[in-house]
Amino acid sequence: MAERYSSAEERSSGVARYVIGLDFGTESLRALLVNVHTGEEIASDICEYEHGVIDESLPDSGVRLDKGWALQDPRDYIKAIHEVIPGVLRKGDVSGEAVIGIGVDFTSCTILPARRDGTPLCFIAGFKDNPHAWVKLWKHHAAQPEADLINQVASERAEGFLKYYGGKVSSEWALPKLLQILIEAPEVYAATDRFIEAGDWVVWYLTGKEWRNACAAGYKALWNHKDGYPSHDFLKALHPAFENAVDEKLRGPILAPGQKAGNLRPEIAKTLGLPESVVVSAATIDAHAGVPGCGVGGPGKMVMIMGTSTCHMIMTEEARFFKGFAGLVKDGILSGYYGYEYGQPAVGDIFAWFIENCVPHAYYEEAKSRGVSLYELLEAKASRLVPGESGLVALDWHNGNRSVLMDASLRGVVVGYTLKTKAEEVYRALIEATAFGTRKIVETHEAGAGPVESIHACGGLTKNRMLMQVYADVLGRPIRVAPSSQPVALGAAIFGALAVGAEGGGYDRPAEAVENMVKGFFEVYRPHEGNWKLYAGLYRDYVKLHDYFGVRKEFHCGQTRGE
Amino acid sequence: MAERYSSAEERSSGVARYVIGLDFGTESLRALLVNVHTGEEIASDICEYEHGVIDESLPDSGVRLDKGWALQDPRDYIKAIHEVIPGVLRKGDVSGEAVIGIGVDFTSCTILPARRDGTPLCFIAGFKDNPHAWVKLWKHHAAQPEADLINQVASERAEGFLKYYGGKVSSEWALPKLLQILIEAPEVYAATDRFIEAGDWVVWYLTGKEWRNACAAGYKALWNHKDGYPSHDFLKALHPAFENAVDEKLRGPILAPGQKAGNLRPEIAKTLGLPESVVVSAATIDAHAGVPGCGVGGPGKMVMIMGTSTCHMIMTEEARFFKGFAGLVKDGILSGYYGYEYGQPAVGDIFAWFIENCVPHAYYEEAKSRGVSLYELLEAKASRLVPGESGLVALDWHNGNRSVLMDASLRGVVVGYTLKTKAEEVYRALIEATAFGTRKIVETHEAGAGPVESIHACGGLTKNRMLMQVYADVLGRPIRVAPSSQPVALGAAIFGALAVGAEGGGYDRPAEAVENMVKGFFEVYRPHEGNWKLYAGLYRDYVKLHDYFGVRKEFHCGQTRGE
Repeated sequence: MAERYSSAEERSSGVARYVIGLDFGTESLRALLVNVHTGEEIASDICEYEHGVIDESLPDSGVRLDKGWALQDPRDYIKAIHEVIPGVLRKGDVSGEAVIGIGVDFTSCTILPARRDGTPLCFIAGFKDNPHAWVKLWKHHAAQPEADLINQVASERAEGFLKYYGGKVSSEWALPKLLQILIEAPEVYAATDRFIEAGDWVVWYLTGKEWRNACAAGYKALWNHKDGYPSHDFLKALHPAFENAVDEKLRGPILAPGQKAGNLRPEIAKTLGLPESVVVSAATIDAHAGVPGCGVGGPGKMVMIMGTSTCHMIMTEEARFFKGFAGLVKDGILSGYYGYEYGQPAVGDIFAWFIENCVPHAYYEEAKSRGVSLYELLEAKASRLVPGESGLVALDWHNGNRSVLMDASLRGVVVGYTLKTKAEEVYRALIEATAFGTRKIVETHEAGAGPVESIHACGGLTKNRMLMQVYADVLGRPIRVAPSSQPVALGAAIFGALAVGAEGGGYDRPAEAVENMVKGFFEVYRPHEGNWKLYAGLYRDYVKLHDYFGVRKEFHCGQTRGE
Repeated sequence: MAERYSSAEERSSGVARYVIGLDFGTESLRALLVNVHTGEEIASDICEYEHGVIDESLPDSGVRLDKGWALQDPRDYIKAIHEVIPGVLRKGDVSGEAVIGIGVDFTSCTILPARRDGTPLCFIAGFKDNPHAWVKLWKHHAAQPEADLINQVASERAEGFLKYYGGKVSSEWALPKLLQILIEAPEVYAATDRFIEAGDWVVWYLTGKEWRNACAAGYKALWNHKDGYPSHDFLKALHPAFENAVDEKLRGPILAPGQKAGNLRPEIAKTLGLPESVVVSAATIDAHAGVPGCGVGGPGKMVMIMGTSTCHMIMTEEARFFKGFAGLVKDGILSGYYGYEYGQPAVGDIFAWFIENCVPHAYYEEAKSRGVSLYELLEAKASRLVPGESGLVALDWHNGNRSVLMDASLRGVVVGYTLKTKAEEVYRALIEATAFGTRKIVETHEAGAGPVESIHACGGLTKNRMLMQVYADVLGRPIRVAPSSQPVALGAAIFGALAVGAEGGGYDRPAEAVENMVKGFFEVYRPHEGNWKLYAGLYRDYVKLHDYFGVRKEFHCGQTRGE
């Protein structure tokens, strides 16, 4: 790693300038200190949130939470900021004076009720013991009834915003969360001056300026450039008291990620050991920060963030509407482009489920005696199989299908079992199924919006070499794996550099920022022609199953139970 | 058990008369000594075949066998007869003089080449080291190319016999095995005076009389009452030298099981300690002996022999032809009736495969700590599930589908996986799938041939109480489990009693024999109405999958590999 870092001399010479990416994940805040000219990753630091994910009882009061709840404590964010920023400066041996920008990415929709001055409601006596006063984390799933209502009403009214979201609003999004508060805790709703994304709240905390970012507003709050937020009529149809929810609680000026939100507040700058001149970018969603972090600064290049689930993002010059994408937001990824989002709601999760529930004892013993994990053992065994050899074909819908069918009720399928079927064969079939699902997404995008010129990947699953090769073989295209081990945090840093702008020592154009700041070895997985041909045949099988179970729906799992 | 047996006094008083059932299985011969009047099972004895299944190399010469071969040594049969008959007399404390009949059942098609005097070719110098001179066991699968040829030619010529077998000849049957010998070992074929089922060969050995039994001839050698064996023209179309195969090598007088084949040869009677007056019945196939052994002596009652695979048998007064049954033979089960056969080629085999390949380590540990088997653990966990609760529906085609689709290329399917799916849920879904497969068979028979008035079961799987309850719930009818722990051997004994006839102290009518000889407690599994309704819905799902994958065949596993 040493050669990728600038020398201590250069760093202390005062020539080099730095940006910091702040990556607020589900469990922790990660900071990455990056040389703005060379992209060298000088140092990183991480701080686990003291209260982590709050899903059992509230801090201090101990109030119990219902099933499906997931909250956070804003104090954790502040504490973490004040730990990791000094942390990276110290670790990188870089003077705070050399830092020119900060970018922020955050999970989303992670949203909190605040007063006009930015004080979270949960900081205020009288609200501390009310769960609705706290930050609702993205994976707070208790607003499903509200999401169902929103979907029903929107569908009946044929709301225009639906076409931006594949026709479905998720319970994880902003409006269901707000509506839940209005219904279940009207006193909290009434006392709230604004509901704000935690990413925007952090930017507000750092700069004293209240903005909304186009990424979260677009992908999670039903906002779009052309029509703004949903209409009063629609909101009223949801609940009489919800009519002015946007005007009163949500509306605010919107910036694209990478636009300047402001400079550091003097008191914050001082505490952090940074100059007040540091520019802070408008926030963005963590996955979307991965796009520039993977080296993509313009349209036509698809980025896959591959982890427990996979998020696929790609930009275009123009908006086209068609069936299959999960989100479409102008300026949602990078300013000036339309950002399309697709997703597979379970990828790594399927493999983890398989490892835990479907691998026999004998394999456990074998892995133990070889000193490898079950993952490694299965990967080694599955690597020896030829595509199609097992005769198995699967559908990767263990957690429903987001793209291209937008149907959470769909279920996983495995076809082709024999009495000789081995665990590694099913494991490989499941990996192939997720790759086929991605091919379906790529084809859908190409048919609807134009060519996918290249495919880029980052995330935990990119460490699985067999899986990456299967994806390249199935897609029939090279896959470029991001060189950074922290591409999301790097993406946040790039947004920081864009907010600074060329005049301040950063960049004006995303493509230029990416070209200079995403450096290092891109590992490229190239398709084997023989495998590509075999997989083309298997993909036809996958599509048959996909259409039978997912499109024609002649058979629907659980239908006899009225689900 | 003691109260079911006659007293020693009665037995030695000379009043009681006995029959012996000889049940030749794949690995061993089992004898059962039964009181012909009361059905009391006096004693049983078992003898493992010395050479078991010969699938690696020939005895003595050590000649290696190819993959798929499975042979036996007729010396093992003789040795076992001379061990188990004295064995049951001794164990039962019964005088040989009190024995009046013997019945024989045998696996099938298990066939051997013999000389005119009954000497197996493999006993003769010059042939001992030729694998084709030995007994080909039912599960000898090396004649698949010959079976393929037979199916192709028969289909092209629209041979009339196809309608008796669901349109397909199995590689396990007689003609493929004979044709393989003709092609691969013409010298063995030429030296053979007759190819004979091992069951018929044993009867020949015991009585000195050469007969063929209608059961094996009908179900395995393409013979039927009306047209006899396949025509010269057809045989010639298979191979020029095969034209007279039936006339020269196979033809012989045919008896129904339960008809008298002859009395014991004096020298055999003497060695066995039995009177020469003992009547020996014509042989039958082991599964088919299970029909009377389960207490079924007439038409309209379905018997399921439930083990690694399941065989379903039911008799009718008239023959009707329709799609779905696997075999139809007049006198094939009991004399005077048409015997329909259906089958599921993998049942217990699927569960064994699941236990070995799909149950996680944690369950292994749990079973160990509880001191139960994995089967017992899964049964306990699966018992707690409500029908449909898991949302899973499966197709039990891991070894293809025999009835009602007659398609060995079909494969197993599981639909409905989620990230919360547990091993016991899949296990139960597989059990349910085999039950749905049986319901499909019952419905097909009823639509084609008339009512199934009652359902009877025997075999290893009947010990699994949860499985039996699922079957009763799915079928919506009570299932009566045979009281005998050795129903197949009991069935053979019943055939012995029928061969003796009423005049000799046995029976003339099967129903009468069964009524008197199948005694004891029938365990009856009765359907729960609530489960029956839930399963009726799930069965509709099963049928949808069944028709999509098995009838319409829009999707066919492994099609991309040209299979």
